[in-house]
Amino acid sequence: MSRGRLHLIPNTLDFGIEGAAGDLREVLPQQVIETAARLTYWAAENAKTTRAFLKRVDALQPLARPVQEQDIRELPRAPKGKADTDMAAAWQALLAPALAGHDVGLISEAGLPAIADPGAQLVAAAHAAGVEVVPHAGPSSLLMALAASGLNGQSFAFVGYLPVDAAARTARIRELEALSARQQQTQLMIETPYRNGALLQALLAALKPQTRLSISCGLSVPQGWTRSMSVAQWRKKENGASLPDKIPAVFALLA
Amino acid sequence: MSRGRLHLIPNTLDFGIEGAAGDLREVLPQQVIETAARLTYWAAENAKTTRAFLKRVDALQPLARPVQEQDIRELPRAPKGKADTDMAAAWQALLAPALAGHDVGLISEAGLPAIADPGAQLVAAAHAAGVEVVPHAGPSSLLMALAASGLNGQSFAFVGYLPVDAAARTARIRELEALSARQQQTQLMIETPYRNGALLQALLAALKPQTRLSISCGLSVPQGWTRSMSVAQWRKKENGASLPDKIPAVFALLA
Repeated sequence: MSRGRLHLIPNTLDFGIEGAAGDLREVLPQQVIETAARLTYWAAENAKTTRAFLKRVDALQPLARPVQEQDIRELPRAPKGKADTDMAAAWQALLAPALAGHDVGLISEAGLPAIADPGAQLVAAAHAAGVEVVPHAGPSSLLMALAASGLNGQSFAFVGYLPVDAAARTARIRELEALSARQQQTQLMIETPYRNGALLQALLAALKPQTRLSISCGLSVPQGWTRSMSVAQWRKKENGASLPDKIPAVFALLA
Repeated sequence: MSRGRLHLIPNTLDFGIEGAAGDLREVLPQQVIETAARLTYWAAENAKTTRAFLKRVDALQPLARPVQEQDIRELPRAPKGKADTDMAAAWQALLAPALAGHDVGLISEAGLPAIADPGAQLVAAAHAAGVEVVPHAGPSSLLMALAASGLNGQSFAFVGYLPVDAAARTARIRELEALSARQQQTQLMIETPYRNGALLQALLAALKPQTRLSISCGLSVPQGWTRSMSVAQWRKKENGASLPDKIPAVFALLA
């Protein structure tokens, strides 16, 4: 019996943004919509948002099986202090349908799965188990923000979240600025939306005036925008309070 | 008069791969196809491949103006030794239609524009000129390779091409491996396809046995694949000669 494959199904970027849910065809290729519609086994960052996604798919392309009958299992999260190796059984369980011949979809709450979410370990387990992994094209807030920034797209890094503690965050910002200057490498970071303003204030306080800073807010949604200018220009035009506190943003700097 | 906008139009990933040109709907959202069909001003990495792209769009969505009547201008490349600042007039010329109220499309030979291509400077010029920049969802070989690798997607860097000189390349590989180990950061790189095999040999010779190496070849095309395993496992199963020499590949390592 041949094995099923693990399809990496991109999700939209409008999760949790009030009134932003548009037509899936704005951000997903038709083939991805068709692939999602025929899958019935899912490994999901969040089961509830996966069901909401499948309802949007169903409106365009009838699902092979009704949403309520789909096999949707959430990715496990390792209890604190537990090694990743202890999780092997959990990943195996998620891959069981693939080993039994069924295609499985991996989906996160927003954007490409296995990037800035816990899905990468399932992908690694798939490779180890001989299950073919099939990536699909879709929206990536990180790369859309990078493209829209006008900063260096030949060398860039995504560093995730910065520390919440103010002193540690300032130290990290200066470390990233120095690294960016040394390697001419754009540094991308994200923050939970309600702290967007605080991160902007910290960046404007810690970065050098000539460092370039780009912010993309609400990528792919109608109210979205990207602004890219020097820190000196940001300081003249903006204060952190002006960043929306309920819309995801991507921050990029180049020193 | 209101200004036009700069649309970042993603291209397919099948450029130059014999027999791989599929349906645009496999990798591009319907809205992107519709946006491309209504644009008539283009800033392009390559005019010829842009015309080929527009013909594929036209087959799905009639163009607002025939391909031969579209205003397609290639991105300038700075002559050696000339500073980027000398290029300002060239970027201004490409943005002139936007300043006159027309939307302009930026497109590269493959994937998202302004990433791993010269388009970022036009995006920066657009921001400076007050032209709104609109990114669109589409295929990114770098992020699809990262997602399919199962390596760390919470922290990663794209470092472009490695040096061609063997000693310099080995030194750079070891530098990237040390950096990856220190920061638990996945390092992504690309190579011109005819050197894919040479790069794999260099990686297998220079990296430590336990370092994980993932290769994605022909992303989004039917013959595409991703293999991800330790260097020790690669050494047992592969030699560089087995990598196709005419299909783009993305290499990712995590030490």
